Amino acid sequence: MIETQPDARPYSPGLEGVVAAETALGYVDGERGRLLYRGYRIGDLVERGTYPAIANLLWTGDWDPDHHLPTSPVPAAVMTALRALPAAAKPMDALRTAVSVWGAAQTLDWPPTPEQARALTAFSPSALAAFARLRRGLEPVEPDSSLDLVPGFLYQLNGERADAATARALDAYFIVGAEHGLNASTFTARVITSTRSDLASAVVGAIGALKGPLHGGAPSEVVEQIHNAGSPANAEKWVRETIAKGDRLMGFGHRVYRAYDPRAAALRKVAESMEHKPDWLELAIAVEDVALRVLAELHPERALKTNVEYYAAPVLMGVGLTPDLFPATFALARHAGWTAHVIEQAGANRIIRPDARYTGPAERDLPA
Amino acid sequence: MIETQPDARPYSPGLEGVVAAETALGYVDGERGRLLYRGYRIGDLVERGTYPAIANLLWTGDWDPDHHLPTSPVPAAVMTALRALPAAAKPMDALRTAVSVWGAAQTLDWPPTPEQARALTAFSPSALAAFARLRRGLEPVEPDSSLDLVPGFLYQLNGERADAATARALDAYFIVGAEHGLNASTFTARVITSTRSDLASAVVGAIGALKGPLHGGAPSEVVEQIHNAGSPANAEKWVRETIAKGDRLMGFGHRVYRAYDPRAAALRKVAESMEHKPDWLELAIAVEDVALRVLAELHPERALKTNVEYYAAPVLMGVGLTPDLFPATFALARHAGWTAHVIEQAGANRIIRPDARYTGPAERDLPA
Repeated sequence: MIETQPDARPYSPGLEGVVAAETALGYVDGERGRLLYRGYRIGDLVERGTYPAIANLLWTGDWDPDHHLPTSPVPAAVMTALRALPAAAKPMDALRTAVSVWGAAQTLDWPPTPEQARALTAFSPSALAAFARLRRGLEPVEPDSSLDLVPGFLYQLNGERADAATARALDAYFIVGAEHGLNASTFTARVITSTRSDLASAVVGAIGALKGPLHGGAPSEVVEQIHNAGSPANAEKWVRETIAKGDRLMGFGHRVYRAYDPRAAALRKVAESMEHKPDWLELAIAVEDVALRVLAELHPERALKTNVEYYAAPVLMGVGLTPDLFPATFALARHAGWTAHVIEQAGANRIIRPDARYTGPAERDLPA
Repeated sequence: MIETQPDARPYSPGLEGVVAAETALGYVDGERGRLLYRGYRIGDLVERGTYPAIANLLWTGDWDPDHHLPTSPVPAAVMTALRALPAAAKPMDALRTAVSVWGAAQTLDWPPTPEQARALTAFSPSALAAFARLRRGLEPVEPDSSLDLVPGFLYQLNGERADAATARALDAYFIVGAEHGLNASTFTARVITSTRSDLASAVVGAIGALKGPLHGGAPSEVVEQIHNAGSPANAEKWVRETIAKGDRLMGFGHRVYRAYDPRAAALRKVAESMEHKPDWLELAIAVEDVALRVLAELHPERALKTNVEYYAAPVLMGVGLTPDLFPATFALARHAGWTAHVIEQAGANRIIRPDARYTGPAERDLPA
């Protein structure tokens, strides 16, 4: 009988601080509150781009503000699978299933390409919209190829075209959600790709990772808090009472960002420029102003700034989405980043296969 | 404009040699040719256990050689999705989809449990067998609850019970495939779990990772080579010609194992003990004997020993599986390990979120 070998190598739980990939796609600077996609500031991209243009930038490196990408039809096999799901199925599970069927119904050659990424990114909003209607007993709506991806998604969700300001607000949300370095879901997509598996397998895995509340968040909690604030006039009273009770203000503070989250800043700007702000946005802006002032007054030593989740909630509510669709809508937005990382990983590939440290029993005989 | 920060931290491509988890499940000792599950030698486990007993050992730590696990029925939503797939869909894609629908059709509470693992491990063989029949125009076969998991799978695949020796050979394959430390698919399952996502999402991601030929291998190449050898009498001539041509002998050599792969040894032992060896097994044993002798003679300096893939092919062919079902059958076997790692990860969880090194352009303005 031989003992198992002791393993004295360093181990950083969660791989915190461990470099696991090189990327030219996204740069996150938490100290200064900067987020760059291929070197371009997120604020500039929201101001001058659309989601399809930003997705194309991530996939190809080319900046073409006129790049269009309409949503694409849902293949019959996917629609059959979505119809078979219970209405109570989680939208993330439905989206994961739809992408799996989409991948199963075709051959996705190696290496993954921008064309494959484009096709998947155009498909998923149609699939999620179809499931969102089916579970309410409504028939899915065919894509309108004259609409770009985000207004097309809203059209297929609601059966009518959204006004320009609403579509613009959701487009901004999609842009700021498109990419954020090596988070858990993007890392999952890269690990799967590293085995030379296909693009659909990688995104299916990424959706599964984003489904976890430690990653995809709990947006309904932000919704509930803003709702509880009641009205702009009541905001200060509500904020002070909430903090006095010892409750956490949802949507403030971030692991990486010590400065104001540039994604929240970009979303707020789009929200404020809307001619007719939905009540949700107006209330969120009022609550945020008060919350930042009160947090700075009570905790001047802590850098508690607004994070992207805070503005995601009112924007998504403002455009008419129910909270249980928020995580899957985040997944639609992140398609651009996931697929861009898949392409990047495949371009300089090496199988991602770390070691484990064995902590179990030494070699032993089975009980007699 | 601020420059992006140079990042001088070490980076090991593929995370090679980086410890990314602690595990008490599997111990791989490549130098000495040892594989332990919770301390028990793989050879002993094959000799005295069945796949359900080994799966239970991995999930719970308890050794109960009488633990049984029959296959379970395929829920209606899954069957509908499988029927909707094209017959040409890859079995791995069909299995990935089946597990995704299975997860979508129920609530899988956190944390993942041995009961959840058991339910999924019992479901997947039925789903793969159903798809394997549907694509041939045959109706699926209901589970026979009097059969244990591996003979149950063969029954649902073929519509008749396998003889005991055949079932035993495939059971041995399932046991040696159940667990192998932190490979790419198991790591994928742990990353997904680390976000507090659910067991089905983790296994869906793992299947996607195993689908890649750098991980799941190319078993059809072993099949083709053994087929080309023709007969035991022709084996030596074929081996010498193949090496002389500069072709690689598939199924020999392994990244980790310098000694004889203990999984191959266990499979060979089961194969040799069969009263009526299928032609495939007999030929494989003959070719292996010759190949090891010739490789040692021509390359005494290289430790080219039989690997598990070599014996997986003839065992799977011998029990009547077609080569395009091999990767998905490997995935069925690995369910025990994947789900055990999911449970272990959840038990001491921290989100797995490594860093990326940014190699892209410095901050810049969008073109005018």
